[in-house]
Formats: sequence, structure tokens, C-alpha cells
Amino acid sequence: MVRKWNKLQSALLGDYRIFKLRQDTSRSPRTNKTHDFYVLEACDWINVIPLTPEGMVVFIHQYRHGIEAVTLEIPGGMVDDTDLSPADSARRELLEETGYMAEEFVHIGTVAPNPAFLNNRCHSFLALGARKVQAAQLDGAEDIVVEERPLSEVPTLIKNGRITHALVIAAFHFLHLYQSQHPL
Amino acid sequence: MVRKWNKLQSALLGDYRIFKLRQDTSRSPRTNKTHDFYVLEACDWINVIPLTPEGMVVFIHQYRHGIEAVTLEIPGGMVDDTDLSPADSARRELLEETGYMAEEFVHIGTVAPNPAFLNNRCHSFLALGARKVQAAQLDGAEDIVVEERPLSEVPTLIKNGRITHALVIAAFHFLHLYQSQHPL
Repeated sequence: MVRKWNKLQSALLGDYRIFKLRQDTSRSPRTNKTHDFYVLEACDWINVIPLTPEGMVVFIHQYRHGIEAVTLEIPGGMVDDTDLSPADSARRELLEETGYMAEEFVHIGTVAPNPAFLNNRCHSFLALGARKVQAAQLDGAEDIVVEERPLSEVPTLIKNGRITHALVIAAFHFLHLYQSQHPL
Repeated sequence: MVRKWNKLQSALLGDYRIFKLRQDTSRSPRTNKTHDFYVLEACDWINVIPLTPEGMVVFIHQYRHGIEAVTLEIPGGMVDDTDLSPADSARRELLEETGYMAEEFVHIGTVAPNPAFLNNRCHSFLALGARKVQAAQLDGAEDIVVEERPLSEVPTLIKNGRITHALVIAAFHFLHLYQSQHPL
């Protein structure tokens, strides 16, 4: 079996607000040699599939600075307040980014966004009974437009490349697995 | 609609082998104010679901330094040689990490691993007719054990948290969509 590496040193290289960068030096249990690895330390993230009583998913259009393009996504963000649970963070992000509330938040799955170099997790929620209650409250660096689309359209949106965010597609996979046991 | 931001400045902060870190200063078309964003420049990645004629998926157990744990994944890696197409890179990674070859590589989908701060894409392939042809060729920083598991077991492996890598789950979602049109 594959064994745990022995971490010999760890040095913080920088703090970049959404993550810290560190360099670890670890020894391979297989070769006994040491190697350096770069790791991003990030807080956990959440995303949420808001579903209205009419079977519509509340999507957001958002400008993304990594790929320098507008994406079609579900609401999401960081669990950056240690007083908030992942479910509370999902509730807050949904309200801030879209102005929607929901009746029930169901945890449908958790991923490691990239276990090779990110140390965090992303928790996905299904928000049932979503409805608009107020205007969205965007911070200055956000630029979001809300659009409801039928849940039945999601497979096509993924197949034709309209939805490309890996964490959003993982969330819809968790929803697919959830639906096989809990018909919506 | 959401509009593109105007990038005013871009500065390279460091080169960390698997990615470069840069800082962009961009102006919001909504507020006209400027904000700083950190972006990781990475080459594209690939992953591959190798399927044997007997309906087994070729998985790998691997130590991952981001989460400091052993994961259950499919083979994957970087498109780091500009002479190789994503499909050729998938073929090379499958052979190096597992010692398997396959008869046919089908591109089943492409994601943005994290459009917020990564500029790259990850291409997923289905490798049909996979079979072991030689020993794996691990580099010193790799530590991999191969295990075949039935494709029919994958939903359970995802539901019970045995498979957690977001890009692997996205690949299996693409396979699910592919199978709805091309029964395996």
C-alpha cells in the first residue's frame, strides 16, 4: 500500500489573501529521498444548488479573473468565518450573491478541490424551496447577474460547455447521486 | 449582462514549478473601481478513466501532498510538453502511472479546474480497451499503487467519500453523460 510521506520542513512563502503558499520538504517512504512540494493553504469552500419550487436552478453569471471570462455557475464562496458552519456559509452566500433564501439546505457531498496542492475541502449543498426575498448584496469585486434555468436543462448546459467550473459539475454529480435515492 | 473587466497591470510574483503566481490589477465595468486579483498560471491538465474489456476501472492509490493523505484516483497529469496533444498526454500518463495501454481515447469533457484563480483547463478522457502491458514507470516523487474496481461500484465510491478529487468526480460525471448516449 501507499504510505504517508514524512514531512521534514515546512516554510511559508507568502500570504495572498485567498490562500497562503508554503513549501514542504518531505521524504518518500518508497525511495527514502526528499522532494519539495508547493501547497496552497485555503479555508474550506462551499457551493449551493438553489432549487425553486418550480424546478428552476438559480444560476449566476460572473466574471472570473482566472480564465478572464464570464462563467455560468451556482452560488459559492468561502467558509471564512470560523463561527459559521458550511451550511450557514452556504445560506449567507446564497443570500448575498442572489438575494434568495431557501427552506432547507441538504449537504449532498464534499470534494478535495485539488488534493495535489490545495489543502482544503469544498462542501456542496442542495437548497430546497429557494425564493427571491431581496436584492443581491454584491461587494465591489463582485459582478453577478442571476438567471433561473430549468434543472432538466443542466445536462445539456454541461455537455455543450456552458457550465465548465469543475466544482459546479462535481456539485451536480452529487445532486445526480442524491436524486437516485431522493426523487425531487 | 456581466462585462469583461479591463486589466490594467499584471506582475509575475513567482515561479513554483507546477504553476506561476501573478497579480493582476483590473477595473470593474460596474463600479469603475480597481481591484487586485491573484492568478495561478498553469499548463492544461488531463485525466483519464481507463476501462478494461471486463468493465473494470483502473484506479490508482496515490499520496497527495495538498491534503497529506492517500487518495483513490484515476490517472492524470499535465499537458506539459507542447508537442503532445491532450489525448497524447493522457496516453503517456496512463502508461507511466499504471503500465496500461488502451485501444481508444475518447474526449468526454473539459473543465476549468477553478476559473476564479487558475487560468487552465482539465481535459477528461475515456480509455476503452485498457490492458496492462508493462510495469508502471514512476518518477521519484510519485508513489502509486494500481487497483482495478468495477465501474458499477463508482457511484458508491463517490457517495461514501472514497473518491474525493473534484476533477475525478467531474470526469465520472462526463462519463455518466457520455453513457446516456453511448451505452458501454
